Amino acid sequence: MTLPQRPRVTGLSGDRFRVLYTLIGDESDVQARALDICLEQTVEFPGDLVPDGDIRDHIVGQIDSLDRLDDRRYAAWISYAVETVGAELTQFLNVVFGNISIKPGIRVEQFDLPDSLLAQFKGPRFGVWDWRKLLNVPVRPLLCTALKPMGLSAAELAKLAGQFALGGLDLIKDDHGLANQPFAPFEERVERCAEAVARANAQTGLRCAYMPNITAPADQVLERARFAKQAGAGALLICPGLVSFDVMRQIADSDDIDLPIMSHPSFYGSFVTHEDNGVSHYALYGQLQRLAGADASIYPNFGGRFAFTRAQCEQIVAGCAVPMGQLKPIFPTPGGGMNMHSIPTIREVCGQHAIYLIGGGLHRHSADLVANVQHFLNLVETH
Amino acid sequence: MTLPQRPRVTGLSGDRFRVLYTLIGDESDVQARALDICLEQTVEFPGDLVPDGDIRDHIVGQIDSLDRLDDRRYAAWISYAVETVGAELTQFLNVVFGNISIKPGIRVEQFDLPDSLLAQFKGPRFGVWDWRKLLNVPVRPLLCTALKPMGLSAAELAKLAGQFALGGLDLIKDDHGLANQPFAPFEERVERCAEAVARANAQTGLRCAYMPNITAPADQVLERARFAKQAGAGALLICPGLVSFDVMRQIADSDDIDLPIMSHPSFYGSFVTHEDNGVSHYALYGQLQRLAGADASIYPNFGGRFAFTRAQCEQIVAGCAVPMGQLKPIFPTPGGGMNMHSIPTIREVCGQHAIYLIGGGLHRHSADLVANVQHFLNLVETH
Repeated sequence: MTLPQRPRVTGLSGDRFRVLYTLIGDESDVQARALDICLEQTVEFPGDLVPDGDIRDHIVGQIDSLDRLDDRRYAAWISYAVETVGAELTQFLNVVFGNISIKPGIRVEQFDLPDSLLAQFKGPRFGVWDWRKLLNVPVRPLLCTALKPMGLSAAELAKLAGQFALGGLDLIKDDHGLANQPFAPFEERVERCAEAVARANAQTGLRCAYMPNITAPADQVLERARFAKQAGAGALLICPGLVSFDVMRQIADSDDIDLPIMSHPSFYGSFVTHEDNGVSHYALYGQLQRLAGADASIYPNFGGRFAFTRAQCEQIVAGCAVPMGQLKPIFPTPGGGMNMHSIPTIREVCGQHAIYLIGGGLHRHSADLVANVQHFLNLVETH
Repeated sequence: MTLPQRPRVTGLSGDRFRVLYTLIGDESDVQARALDICLEQTVEFPGDLVPDGDIRDHIVGQIDSLDRLDDRRYAAWISYAVETVGAELTQFLNVVFGNISIKPGIRVEQFDLPDSLLAQFKGPRFGVWDWRKLLNVPVRPLLCTALKPMGLSAAELAKLAGQFALGGLDLIKDDHGLANQPFAPFEERVERCAEAVARANAQTGLRCAYMPNITAPADQVLERARFAKQAGAGALLICPGLVSFDVMRQIADSDDIDLPIMSHPSFYGSFVTHEDNGVSHYALYGQLQRLAGADASIYPNFGGRFAFTRAQCEQIVAGCAVPMGQLKPIFPTPGGGMNMHSIPTIREVCGQHAIYLIGGGLHRHSADLVANVQHFLNLVETH
């Protein structure tokens, strides 16, 4: 017995989604490299052994176009049957960049999903407009900082949170390194910080939101999200690189949690550290975040502690807003060593519908944190 | 108000874990780059603003050594207080390679954990020796194949599984692209394949294990693992790059599931596609898999469809067996385009305590799959 002859594949709709890859190669091998993607990401079978019929005609990926970009780069649009994915984000990522992530010289640039596949994903629960309504900030960029440094107690972090909120910040997130350490345990930290921010809001009349970091072991993420909600958190911070994109999607889809989500880029930076491999800034920090339910996408801005270029940041901003069916646009959230002087260039690149994230830099202006926040807010309002 | 002066950090034990990084740099900047890691991975705060006292002395990472490797590479052992991690795998990864994953020119080579931290992780439930007992194969390498190509029905896949089991394979896994697609839904597939393998085992007297792919949306992974167990699966396949390393750890730690786990490398290949960045083969496919509970670690062997070198594969084999406290050694599982001719070199590199994974290549020898498996087994036994 061997493989069935011309097996019929049931349930095919004919709908396909498309992925744009950049391939490193030359004329002599690029066609073979594109075909290799078509096989590797679907049947994972030697081309000559693939059964004829539906599998070869529909399940194997198809090269829609293959164009030369320069003397070593080609652009390939490859399409896949939506049924290879089912309705699962995990399997979508598997088809787009599963095994081929291990092959050098292949980069995912963008993807293009038909409505039938987009309909399987709820995407961001709030997005730009509904989050703005929650915060009652309709027009200007949102202002955010992070509670740090790691090592402070819950009470000390809560004091900082209160000061930031009094100054008029819109969003105060846990530093992404705050998890459940003995010096500032999750529950105590969240209760104290949420309370401090609520007290400040009562004084200012503003709606500053505290965003705890719910990145946690698999059996505790939902629990921490619910605890945070109950304690009065106004949004959530999560690291999909540590808990998976699908866990972020699960939180976004949870009606009982119902809070905006800010996505932090920890741990999957290797997708972008070399331009020949990985996933583009546009797809990784833009499109994919939206598919996985983030309402804001943090990335290191150009000119800070990291190495992103201005053009890459512009691509992220574009990926956060490009039409994707019913998936709402989200806030690009440049951070990573920003300071007060960065505001004019952030404004140029991101426009008004962005979250400006300044962490340590907010401690530098003066010893008065409330005054520093007011200065930050003033700069944003006048640029 | 500003930051507290000399804040006291409670709960510090003095225990530290160490990570070996390779840094790209030169004499003029490498010290600064190493210090940057110490700050970025912990306090994420400008060095001059870090409060004196416990935070500066204990929470900030410490450079234990910094040695020149060649004209552009340095090796830095950096240590962190175990309390920065708590007892969470997610936060461990965050400290080891969170933000710095986004900075080019930093590679995690290996890590070295004190017993107090290792004790927080159960690691592989079976490992090499206990899995061998389950299968009743005490000495020779284990033989494995994958059910494919995607597009076949559950009934067709089950027929293949039965043939492979009759031939005498030890392990039959779902291809990692089989999820819950309409053409071979998870539950039907698992029931049929497990049944076919059980039937063959009754005939052969062997203990071939069927390993369904339980990679799934976050709210369904445990459910699928339990369904698989109930249906008679003998082990599980999972892609930690898609569901997270901590979800794999959760499955391994679940007493009611109690099945060996094979880890598939889908989606996180970008960690290894450029030698200046990411995570070493040793740490990624060896040490980390064990910390996260895998009993076997699949990787693309050299000489197959992928670009790993023989030396990199040797490093993986070493990482699967290096002493790590109570964490058991696991099976390196070379795959990715292997065929019958690869057996002698696999044997040289991996030795006997490995799983040899041949997928499509098993269909090539002849049209009789049972005979092909017997040929494969014979080759393994005579090399």
